[in-house]
Amino acid sequence: MTMSIAEPDQSELARLLQQAGSPYDPQSVETLIEGVLAAPVEGGTNWHALIADPMTPALADRLEALRAAKAKAYHNGLSTEDFNRLPRAARLDRLRQELSAQGLDGFIVPRADEHQGEYVPPRGQRLAWISGFTGSAGVAIVLRDRATLFVDGRYTLQAAAQVDTQLFEIHHLIDEPPSRWIGTALAPGSVLGYDQWLHTPQEIERFRAGAERAGAVLRAVSDNPVDRVWPGQPAAPIAPVRPHDERFAGESAQAKRTRLGRALAEDGVKAVVLTMSESIAWLLNIRGGDVPHTPLPLSFAILRQDGSVTLFIDRRKLVRGLERHLGNEVSIAAPEELGPAMDALAAEGGRVQLDPATAACWIFDRLEAANAKIHRAADPCLLPKACKNLVEVDGTRAAHRRDGAALTRFLAWLAHEAPKGKLTEIAASDRLEAIRREGEHFRDLSFSTISGAGSNGAIVHYRATPETEKRLEPGTLYLLDSGAQYLDGTTDVTRTVAIGAPTQEMRDRFTRVLKGHIALALARFPRGTTGTQLDAFARAALWQEGLDYDHGTGHGVGSYLGVHEGPQRISKAPNGQALLPGMIVSNEPGYYKTGAYGIRIENLVLVQPAAGEGEREMLGFETLTLAPIDRNLVEASLLDEDEIAWLDAYHTRVRETLTPLVDPDTAHWLAEVTAPIAIAPST
Amino acid sequence: MTMSIAEPDQSELARLLQQAGSPYDPQSVETLIEGVLAAPVEGGTNWHALIADPMTPALADRLEALRAAKAKAYHNGLSTEDFNRLPRAARLDRLRQELSAQGLDGFIVPRADEHQGEYVPPRGQRLAWISGFTGSAGVAIVLRDRATLFVDGRYTLQAAAQVDTQLFEIHHLIDEPPSRWIGTALAPGSVLGYDQWLHTPQEIERFRAGAERAGAVLRAVSDNPVDRVWPGQPAAPIAPVRPHDERFAGESAQAKRTRLGRALAEDGVKAVVLTMSESIAWLLNIRGGDVPHTPLPLSFAILRQDGSVTLFIDRRKLVRGLERHLGNEVSIAAPEELGPAMDALAAEGGRVQLDPATAACWIFDRLEAANAKIHRAADPCLLPKACKNLVEVDGTRAAHRRDGAALTRFLAWLAHEAPKGKLTEIAASDRLEAIRREGEHFRDLSFSTISGAGSNGAIVHYRATPETEKRLEPGTLYLLDSGAQYLDGTTDVTRTVAIGAPTQEMRDRFTRVLKGHIALALARFPRGTTGTQLDAFARAALWQEGLDYDHGTGHGVGSYLGVHEGPQRISKAPNGQALLPGMIVSNEPGYYKTGAYGIRIENLVLVQPAAGEGEREMLGFETLTLAPIDRNLVEASLLDEDEIAWLDAYHTRVRETLTPLVDPDTAHWLAEVTAPIAIAPST
Repeated sequence: MTMSIAEPDQSELARLLQQAGSPYDPQSVETLIEGVLAAPVEGGTNWHALIADPMTPALADRLEALRAAKAKAYHNGLSTEDFNRLPRAARLDRLRQELSAQGLDGFIVPRADEHQGEYVPPRGQRLAWISGFTGSAGVAIVLRDRATLFVDGRYTLQAAAQVDTQLFEIHHLIDEPPSRWIGTALAPGSVLGYDQWLHTPQEIERFRAGAERAGAVLRAVSDNPVDRVWPGQPAAPIAPVRPHDERFAGESAQAKRTRLGRALAEDGVKAVVLTMSESIAWLLNIRGGDVPHTPLPLSFAILRQDGSVTLFIDRRKLVRGLERHLGNEVSIAAPEELGPAMDALAAEGGRVQLDPATAACWIFDRLEAANAKIHRAADPCLLPKACKNLVEVDGTRAAHRRDGAALTRFLAWLAHEAPKGKLTEIAASDRLEAIRREGEHFRDLSFSTISGAGSNGAIVHYRATPETEKRLEPGTLYLLDSGAQYLDGTTDVTRTVAIGAPTQEMRDRFTRVLKGHIALALARFPRGTTGTQLDAFARAALWQEGLDYDHGTGHGVGSYLGVHEGPQRISKAPNGQALLPGMIVSNEPGYYKTGAYGIRIENLVLVQPAAGEGEREMLGFETLTLAPIDRNLVEASLLDEDEIAWLDAYHTRVRETLTPLVDPDTAHWLAEVTAPIAIAPST
Repeated sequence: MTMSIAEPDQSELARLLQQAGSPYDPQSVETLIEGVLAAPVEGGTNWHALIADPMTPALADRLEALRAAKAKAYHNGLSTEDFNRLPRAARLDRLRQELSAQGLDGFIVPRADEHQGEYVPPRGQRLAWISGFTGSAGVAIVLRDRATLFVDGRYTLQAAAQVDTQLFEIHHLIDEPPSRWIGTALAPGSVLGYDQWLHTPQEIERFRAGAERAGAVLRAVSDNPVDRVWPGQPAAPIAPVRPHDERFAGESAQAKRTRLGRALAEDGVKAVVLTMSESIAWLLNIRGGDVPHTPLPLSFAILRQDGSVTLFIDRRKLVRGLERHLGNEVSIAAPEELGPAMDALAAEGGRVQLDPATAACWIFDRLEAANAKIHRAADPCLLPKACKNLVEVDGTRAAHRRDGAALTRFLAWLAHEAPKGKLTEIAASDRLEAIRREGEHFRDLSFSTISGAGSNGAIVHYRATPETEKRLEPGTLYLLDSGAQYLDGTTDVTRTVAIGAPTQEMRDRFTRVLKGHIALALARFPRGTTGTQLDAFARAALWQEGLDYDHGTGHGVGSYLGVHEGPQRISKAPNGQALLPGMIVSNEPGYYKTGAYGIRIENLVLVQPAAGEGEREMLGFETLTLAPIDRNLVEASLLDEDEIAWLDAYHTRVRETLTPLVDPDTAHWLAEVTAPIAIAPST
């Protein structure tokens, strides 16, 4: 796929590379840039360090020119141009020809990559390429004479706008799951293919049951038919992988490896295959940049009883000094070596641990084919990663002070700007991002900011675009959900602000959401309690009025890692994981009135031992997020004494903590908006 | 095993049988009486109807004499005499010889019968016979040179008292499950046997994983080795099976069969095998008496798409007219015919539905051996049985009025008697039972009454015996948990009463339990909410003080069926079943101070559409139970206005409903104890 550029440039580039002591030749640099183009742009010129370190100014200029030229010549797989290059109908035709050639009657195209993570790099965006649908969840099933796209309730409008319904029927992912749909759609005797890399065994089990109902069979294919017909499929992303300093991680990678290796020995397990890049980043204290907003180095790893690790990763991603950081007990192998390594593990004997909820079928199948004894169990990094150590906790507190100061500066500015009536959603979120970027240890946003004015605030996963954005107008609410990645912690905060005077209904709804938020913040619960048990506390005040919200109340948050991480959650969905000290979760009840406004109040909270008397070991939450809650939206007569006391104490803490960190104008505004609630509750 | 009695009696009996038009000869009557002796004694002379209907007085006298003689000669398998007849060590020796003979290194002895129900008839009490342990949950594993009994925290004291620890180690069922224990206890290559009738596939899956870890194997045995060495193992119980009138059931059995058969057709299922006797009783509108306190006819059934049913049951249990009640579409077969029927089902082709959570392995294995296509899904009767129809709801309301009047008469009597200081736990519960028996449609208690004075109240599953019972003394609490089976409904209620003056701590704890009870009673929640989500409402007031209770908050309750029924629950344990209109659950938070006192407040509640405005379809609870809550234990300053309003309104309803149903003295007392709470909450 590489499209070389003109010869003269190459010799000049070769000279500059040699001068800078780079191991690369011009051709290799071009190939590497294809991976750089498939990684998020937020890395800037970080990738230069992969070519030569230190870099020379002349080479740096040359590299940027080359990157720009290649970016033009070789479009990112997800750009508009690429999508338009080959009409969607032609793509489907080609895929169907390929299915025929492979003896398949259909193929499953999920929105997933080999790591089953939240973000899928451009190379893995097969669902978007074939269907046009770019949402974060969905799956298509392409049969000989029909094709169906399954999306959930969040994405029905978006799918209808992006997808040609002459080519794809659109079905509801939850109400009519594809695994059930195929039970009637497949002809008896037909063969439905799937890519073993893109599904967990649990998923395939459901599809298999559906196929059996139809008298059809599933077949694993080694050569993804979409890849075979996708011209210019992007390369795998290449972004620098760097050490994550122990002063942020709080525990050396060696200590983690030894500890987890010992636990494997106790379970009678010889080795565990890690497939989640978050787990590997945590275990080895490394961070990368292969996907947006989460510092992941996409990779696989094997951890053994003795604490030694084999890391399967493209060596070109490793910055100078990374191998020294990893140490002698960590060896590097190319991703292609994973298969032979599975064979070798099986040949050695002993049980090999693998997580059936997150690992790809391919690994199970390879191990089984080699007669390995597989021990199915959860990824052993999940729980220790979720329970932050004292250094991580201190770091996240510091990150939240910094983030709270930035958000408060923005809110003070907003209070001044919004009444002018000209501010738009994107301008507002750009301003906030600019302020955040000034903060120490800032690396990236932790997700695309949700900046929703008026009715856009009622769209739970809204992303402002020039076509959709609104002005912040008097008499409306503005919902702002944002966060950042700092070296010492990950933040995620939502504030809802009244622009001008809110209606009484808005104040009533906001106050009920706040009551739920406070009920959770004040909750005290015995060790062993799950988030599922606490979820209703955040909803009760809405339920009393026949209202509710259709999302979870809280997700786990990492430490300079994923802004969404398990295994804990606070939600209606059954979840067996107890909340444990050191876990960080969001507390974010909301209320949404379609076409009118959205309300959400989100703080991150830390699970901590709870003070006080009693017979049981009790836990509670420490609120980490620091930013004022709009008192203009609080109907104090709906709050009881404890709730008012919580709000006033929280505001006092916000004021006292942030005042030294902000400019005088902001401090003045902050003092005003964090004054105690005046009205006593009616009795 | 039959021990015939003297010849002259036989000819006299033969004459009486003939006179009464009975189809039985004396020998058959004797065999039948062995089954009668294995059924609960609560049936009285009901069983006579199985011999001749109408009965003659002379034959009735003769039958009772015969039953009494056989009861003496042929001890009930669970009586003390039988347990002492063969020493426990000898039983273990014999079992181990039998294991040797069958080529087994060990055997699993669960506390379970073929129906996996809550009550196990004497014939199935293999765990009690081999170990001496009579608790309601547990399992033993007998190996060649060691034997281990696993019981949960409720039963550790009882097991230690009942079991010879020279013969059995005692382990904790939850902390060290037997399926994990065998992973280290079994020698590599050893063979652990199990009886396919006494386990579900889900259980055996766990045991198999444990055995594999040890390099051992599980083997299903067709001939239970305990049965082979158990001299005088009781017969299967025989109690009359009668129609359950449609004026109580609210829907004809034909309508139920047709409705469920149609649903099978929609799911593409040919037939379902029903193994839970509760389901069969509900489906066919029949009730029996094979186990204590639940009117179950132990049986199996096959329901087909066309609504026809084959009922596998001992014909001797059916009262005259039952077959007419069942109708032409229900055919009767002997329990031994179940196996051939499975083979026939498989041979017909089509999918056969079976519940992997409740059906015995034996049925799965038999169907699989016959190459049946098995569809694993929940018992289809569970949900319609749980969602009561309008007739059942009206019936249960009537039963609760009657039951509330009985309990209130008792409580008024107790208020008069207890101060004398002579009343004991058994005398108190006997008095309550006597009053309840006077009520219309009364059939039985719905469980053994828990009558616990002082520290006995802190034992959650306490059963008073002459050895353990205490007097109700001033300054203590008395906890009374009881219920009854009426033809029109099943009740279950707990009241905690202060004898004399309670301490301030008792009042505080009682009031916190009451706050939890009220929080649940007042809960309003959207359709789709599960009991797991609501459980914490009942605990929050205790949690705030570092207190909790170690049992669920609510169990489902049947309609003249099980006092414990699924699939819904209100508990910490994850449960995916939404609460649906028509479901009955208990609301029973508590608090227990070991060695001091126990508190529980239990009402049954009915899930109903909730009144009021809002955007969502909301549900709530209607409280069914009617009996005063002891205001002497209420610390009104801990209650808020809504809680006081609930308590006063509840007491008003109790008084207005029950006053016409009780004697003047009780009515006078009731008026006093249901007066409004005097003290306003402190503000």
